Amino acid sequence: MTIGIVGAGQLGQMLALAGYPLGFDFLFVDRSAEVPAARIAPVLTGELNDPALLGELARRSDVISIDWENVDVAALARAARDTRLAPPLRAVAVAQDRLSEKKAFVKLSIPTTRYDAVDDRAGLERAVTRIGLPGILKTRRLGYDGKGQQVLRSAADVDRAWDSLGKVPLLYEEFVPFDYEVSIIGARSRSGAVAIYPLNRNYHLDGILRLTLAPWAVPRLARIAAGHLRRVLEAFNYVGVLTIEYFVHRGRLIANEMAPRVHNSGHWTIEGAVTSQFENHVRAIAGLPLGDPSARGHSAMINLIGTVPKPDRFLRESGVHWHDYGKEPRKGRKLGHCTLVEQSAVRRNIGVRRLLAGLYPQLPLKP
Amino acid sequence: MTIGIVGAGQLGQMLALAGYPLGFDFLFVDRSAEVPAARIAPVLTGELNDPALLGELARRSDVISIDWENVDVAALARAARDTRLAPPLRAVAVAQDRLSEKKAFVKLSIPTTRYDAVDDRAGLERAVTRIGLPGILKTRRLGYDGKGQQVLRSAADVDRAWDSLGKVPLLYEEFVPFDYEVSIIGARSRSGAVAIYPLNRNYHLDGILRLTLAPWAVPRLARIAAGHLRRVLEAFNYVGVLTIEYFVHRGRLIANEMAPRVHNSGHWTIEGAVTSQFENHVRAIAGLPLGDPSARGHSAMINLIGTVPKPDRFLRESGVHWHDYGKEPRKGRKLGHCTLVEQSAVRRNIGVRRLLAGLYPQLPLKP
Repeated sequence: MTIGIVGAGQLGQMLALAGYPLGFDFLFVDRSAEVPAARIAPVLTGELNDPALLGELARRSDVISIDWENVDVAALARAARDTRLAPPLRAVAVAQDRLSEKKAFVKLSIPTTRYDAVDDRAGLERAVTRIGLPGILKTRRLGYDGKGQQVLRSAADVDRAWDSLGKVPLLYEEFVPFDYEVSIIGARSRSGAVAIYPLNRNYHLDGILRLTLAPWAVPRLARIAAGHLRRVLEAFNYVGVLTIEYFVHRGRLIANEMAPRVHNSGHWTIEGAVTSQFENHVRAIAGLPLGDPSARGHSAMINLIGTVPKPDRFLRESGVHWHDYGKEPRKGRKLGHCTLVEQSAVRRNIGVRRLLAGLYPQLPLKP
Repeated sequence: MTIGIVGAGQLGQMLALAGYPLGFDFLFVDRSAEVPAARIAPVLTGELNDPALLGELARRSDVISIDWENVDVAALARAARDTRLAPPLRAVAVAQDRLSEKKAFVKLSIPTTRYDAVDDRAGLERAVTRIGLPGILKTRRLGYDGKGQQVLRSAADVDRAWDSLGKVPLLYEEFVPFDYEVSIIGARSRSGAVAIYPLNRNYHLDGILRLTLAPWAVPRLARIAAGHLRRVLEAFNYVGVLTIEYFVHRGRLIANEMAPRVHNSGHWTIEGAVTSQFENHVRAIAGLPLGDPSARGHSAMINLIGTVPKPDRFLRESGVHWHDYGKEPRKGRKLGHCTLVEQSAVRRNIGVRRLLAGLYPQLPLKP
């Protein structure tokens, strides 16, 4: 069986590394041949919304999936005529648009921030009046790692935010002075079975994920988030891995966004869970039974952003695993990650402080 | 850094799967492009003792290693002039020849079977007289999985054995009515650090490994075997992973052979140890610190020989991991393996009996 994947970044690379042992072949499409997955699988290069390119991928694959959710939905729909697509098109379409995403959360009774769609300058003023300040103006599409966002703290910020973002459809939402961030990741198989990973606690700097601790052992939140995730997976008749990111505010979960794919906050599952998110995505889309998502010990995942240090110092610590995606260094770019797995949360916390000291000394571990 | 590997079978494939996350590239040579590692790395094809081919591998690699120990030593020596070779040539040469291997064991005070070199028919008769019957006549080179061996039970077997094997240099050794078989695997880094895995208990059928249980918790044997392994690693100033296989006879270890490479009985380390044998081989030859070889839980590895069953039934069990090497099915061929990891030996033993029932019902789990 050949699995075709749109996007050949590190997520695609890790999907292939997890899928080869299961006996599958992989084929990617991406804009360039200088991409992480190209080291381990063939890559068809061209524009990701090129119908001919996606058509070739579909013809040569038994199932196609994505490592990046912002693929043109119309192009993906055409490609899906020739083969199976997992995750389903509708889930990809909804996750691409912050407005549809918010509506889906509301429809499924998943608490989210208050929001208004903003299509013009007057609409922004109406939204600011209704939702209040501070608030965040976001592009409805193509935002990630804090890009395409402006915080509005006072009425004077409206002009600046509008000038910066006003050329595309927008969303204005309340600013939640959240205590911390978590995410939940799960998979749904073709037969409808669901496997949900433990909750992840996520730490960002400059809008980019730096650190995940898992399992984040707050049973009440984990239970509620798992319920949300299950509702989303069922609602879309979903196949594959899906992630929901949350703010935690005064002990309550507020859904921020969802990603119809494996997620950076789940990289710890490669060594820290019985079955990784990558293997479970491959199992799901290939029609195999899902694997056990339980944690093995206590994990910390640290992103390597902008530069990859020499691994020697890190690998000297027992339980540290290194992932260098083989990308060209660039400021703010995710180039790799390392994962620490320990038998107890206490030991994990001691180890992660030592690792962080050399990478992100400014990152406070307590909320 | 590019790691060149002579032989692109499943061992090479698993080395590359373990090494890509560390940021390394891989290049293989093998006789055919239809080999397991070809799915994930470029393969130069040709005869493995072709100096031009090995020369190209050496020029394009920062270090070269092997996934098969019977590479022509002279060809390897020429290639090693252009780059680093790990493991060292002398260890490969010794492991290729049962006579040198026996001498090395004796020199390092590692108990092994009594043996005599056999170069002609008269020599075989002298050896049978000295060592006694029953005994085993083996080719000095190129034997594996029970090939190139004849058991002699009575004087009448001498003719048959000689007719079958007498065209090449031979070794006659005593037949040990062993109770069971174990192996030990360890790595030595370029800086001389050593990491030794727990002892493996191995079960064969028709001369082919079918099942490994690890850790095999007999502390006395594990301690003695680790001592042997350490002596071998030091004696050869070894870099990389090395394996010693033993018979256990009346509670004593009797070294049978060594392999200067990762080993089938260590496949469980992929999911069942903190750092796999494949990752530790790559770390060692690349000059990185070794990873922790400790077991995570209790593992069983079952080889898939001749045919690969549909994985669905196996993957339904929690803790089962599947490895399909993507090879053409052929009688007696190692096509894949599956590994079960459980939190206790009792649960592992229950699980492995269930898995074996569908694969090797004739395999008794008790000695």
